[in-house]
Amino acid sequence: MAAKLDETTALNLKFDEHGLIPAIVTDAKDGTLLMFAFMNREAIDVTRETGHAHFYSRSRKVLWKKGETSGEIFAIASIMTDCDQDVLQLKVTPEGQGAACHTGRKSCFYRKIAGGKLEFTDNEKLFDPAVAYRK
Amino acid sequence: MAAKLDETTALNLKFDEHGLIPAIVTDAKDGTLLMFAFMNREAIDVTRETGHAHFYSRSRKVLWKKGETSGEIFAIASIMTDCDQDVLQLKVTPEGQGAACHTGRKSCFYRKIAGGKLEFTDNEKLFDPAVAYRK
Repeated sequence: MAAKLDETTALNLKFDEHGLIPAIVTDAKDGTLLMFAFMNREAIDVTRETGHAHFYSRSRKVLWKKGETSGEIFAIASIMTDCDQDVLQLKVTPEGQGAACHTGRKSCFYRKIAGGKLEFTDNEKLFDPAVAYRK
Repeated sequence: MAAKLDETTALNLKFDEHGLIPAIVTDAKDGTLLMFAFMNREAIDVTRETGHAHFYSRSRKVLWKKGETSGEIFAIASIMTDCDQDVLQLKVTPEGQGAACHTGRKSCFYRKIAGGKLEFTDNEKLFDPAVAYRK
């Protein structure tokens, strides 16, 4: 454990070897875990400047704005970091229809592991993905 | 987006190039984000077998049981995965004194970014780290 990092007010974020830091997104109002993504320094800067969540896509290797296509934008309420300063928590106010997940659900975490299978715990779709992502 | 992974009941977790998967730990009762760690296949198996959260330490390169030293054990309520099956959410019931963080706080996320600094949002220590981690 990094004893100096956990009780300081000095901002000293630790990025991994790819220049990334994990970002956990929760609903500022009810605390629901909405999604998980990675940010780089630029994503953090743009998020703070604009007040809207931006992430770094590891597969596409680009900065992306959450909701750019679907309209499911996240307004930033606050950005927290953890004791080791190597993880972020984004507390957000979802705009649009409140579906953080590209499947149209409120949260990306809608299935639980049950035995060797997955079990759906939320099947309510707040938008139709076929429509929301039509170009 | 992995279209096939997001609507299936088939369990097909995706591990990264190091054999790890991020695990977000939330309080099963009130949804509070408690901590973040990584799991490997063994950590998942042991967690499911024992009903207590185990993680993989990237720095020490070992499996570790949450609370082994501090007594702050996590009983598993359920394990969720996300649309892409490359992140886990552990919904847990904290045992011990309810301090997930090694600093003695309920959550590892107790500081927010404010300007170029960090600001403490929770300074309540549920245990004294100097005592809890004394060997």
